[in-house]
Amino acid sequence: MGKNITLAHGSGGKLTRDLIEGVLLPKFRNAALEPLGDAASLPFDGERLHFTTDSFVVKPLEFPGGDIGKLAVCGTINDLAVSGARPLWLSCGLIIEENLPLELLERILDSIAKTASEAGVSVVCGDTKVVERGGADGLFINTAGIGAPLENFRQSAIQPGDKVIVNGTIGDHEAAIFRAREKLGRQMVLNSDCAPLHELVASMVDAAGGGVRVMRDPTRGGVGAVLNELANGSKCSFTIQEDDIPIRNEVRGICELVGFDVMYLANEGKVVCVVSDGAAGAVLDAMRAHPLGRDAAIIGELTDDTRERVYLASGFGGRRIVSLPTGGQLPRIC
Amino acid sequence: MGKNITLAHGSGGKLTRDLIEGVLLPKFRNAALEPLGDAASLPFDGERLHFTTDSFVVKPLEFPGGDIGKLAVCGTINDLAVSGARPLWLSCGLIIEENLPLELLERILDSIAKTASEAGVSVVCGDTKVVERGGADGLFINTAGIGAPLENFRQSAIQPGDKVIVNGTIGDHEAAIFRAREKLGRQMVLNSDCAPLHELVASMVDAAGGGVRVMRDPTRGGVGAVLNELANGSKCSFTIQEDDIPIRNEVRGICELVGFDVMYLANEGKVVCVVSDGAAGAVLDAMRAHPLGRDAAIIGELTDDTRERVYLASGFGGRRIVSLPTGGQLPRIC
Repeated sequence: MGKNITLAHGSGGKLTRDLIEGVLLPKFRNAALEPLGDAASLPFDGERLHFTTDSFVVKPLEFPGGDIGKLAVCGTINDLAVSGARPLWLSCGLIIEENLPLELLERILDSIAKTASEAGVSVVCGDTKVVERGGADGLFINTAGIGAPLENFRQSAIQPGDKVIVNGTIGDHEAAIFRAREKLGRQMVLNSDCAPLHELVASMVDAAGGGVRVMRDPTRGGVGAVLNELANGSKCSFTIQEDDIPIRNEVRGICELVGFDVMYLANEGKVVCVVSDGAAGAVLDAMRAHPLGRDAAIIGELTDDTRERVYLASGFGGRRIVSLPTGGQLPRIC
Repeated sequence: MGKNITLAHGSGGKLTRDLIEGVLLPKFRNAALEPLGDAASLPFDGERLHFTTDSFVVKPLEFPGGDIGKLAVCGTINDLAVSGARPLWLSCGLIIEENLPLELLERILDSIAKTASEAGVSVVCGDTKVVERGGADGLFINTAGIGAPLENFRQSAIQPGDKVIVNGTIGDHEAAIFRAREKLGRQMVLNSDCAPLHELVASMVDAAGGGVRVMRDPTRGGVGAVLNELANGSKCSFTIQEDDIPIRNEVRGICELVGFDVMYLANEGKVVCVVSDGAAGAVLDAMRAHPLGRDAAIIGELTDDTRERVYLASGFGGRRIVSLPTGGQLPRIC
């Protein structure tokens, strides 16, 4: 009997990695795809360009702090930004379920246009498909993006003592989506962190003077998945100080209530950056001077432990391993 | 009461145009998007690049002559080719319904890899989302593509006497999808024409010596929709000779049986080319020398009638107007 695709294959965790590395990569093997970065870096007419794509299936379509349109623009901008590129152009592919209210579609299109315009990128091509009722769920959006190189991050330069920085509170997006779905705590203010990070990233690059090793945006699978990927890719380990991670009280509360691990919660306006020890202070200062980095913090560092592990050290001296998540905590968060 | 999206909004006909020109374009207005071509032409580092996107929701996922994977690669290659670009790179975004057999997914991924490899393009980035059972229908694929300029087609140079050429029999794709769905005529051999056209297009450009005015790939809405768009865009009319249009007997049979108009049937391996009278012969010869152009034919010409109409002239001296289709004949053909 054959195997079938499960929701966990789309979670950003272990099964997603198995699907990508075990099934997809062997079929498409090429130098641009192989690094499995957030965007491909391609040679074009003596220059390089960065190219990335993401589909968005978030439910509900509108949520506190954003909607599927804002998410689709920010997600692709952020993939370009953390790959070291300045985002230039976006494509926009809509798959609409028959009977979607035109008014809702218009609100989401307005949100795409506003987010793109504020971020200084243009939507230059698009496509619209409509499927019959029940053939899709409201609206899915794909955005692909092209960027120009800003900085050449070199993950291979990573060394023990390098610092791990995040630009603010983690887990906000997935917690906000969970809350919107379950309709709990109506008085609680909890917005998705959905935001375009390219300007923040540019200011970090400026401040770092070549000290940025690598950046990732911790979407599906959260900070835990991203750090595990970086540990695997660099044959190093990370020690993260639990007390140094910025977490909103509301997110902490939801995690305690439902049993979520905040390390695996998806973010849509966060960057995880590994930076040289020497540049960390300047990068942190630059981040805190930007509205999207006010709560930036150094949360840990790279160690010479070659077992490719992510350790979470508690304030009480305990230490636990944060492994690659095996399945997602919630489906359809982005 | 608000309006809702209908299947006809995705048909490639009048409602699609209303949605794009009335709702989408005003929100995203920019110089690259405005021409509403098959791909955007963008300035990059002193050169230009072409960028396009398409989502694919075809049902069934596998059909005679192709599958959704082959279609997703060919569709985006063809959008680049008819915009005057040499396709270089593709992105691939998968939206998978939970429970899709892994074996079927693997077959479709193999088809993507084979089609891309044979066409000399690379899939350089991708994304995978999984939605719960009932949240989508099997598999949707988005491909975006980047190409380098091959030739600068100038629709504005169009003039009366220019010839309209197609590279072979029209309507094969939609008729094959219809037949696969309705399971009629099991003995009948009728394959989709799904094929990558960039090499054929390159040979046409070579032969034309600058005589190509404009090309389009007649997918949703068929040759009828494409000619209407060209007539509107050029403030001219076309007279098409019905007897000169290559049509398979099987497709003609299905049209008579079901009442389809072959002029509106979708193609996935056809190009409609407006070429100067002087270059038409050389272009036709070049097309017929290519495996994908063996049945190429001059089917009509541009007239100085400024009413922006498409006339279909019959062998008996009759003439009817082929207007922009108002709705699609079948949903989910691509």
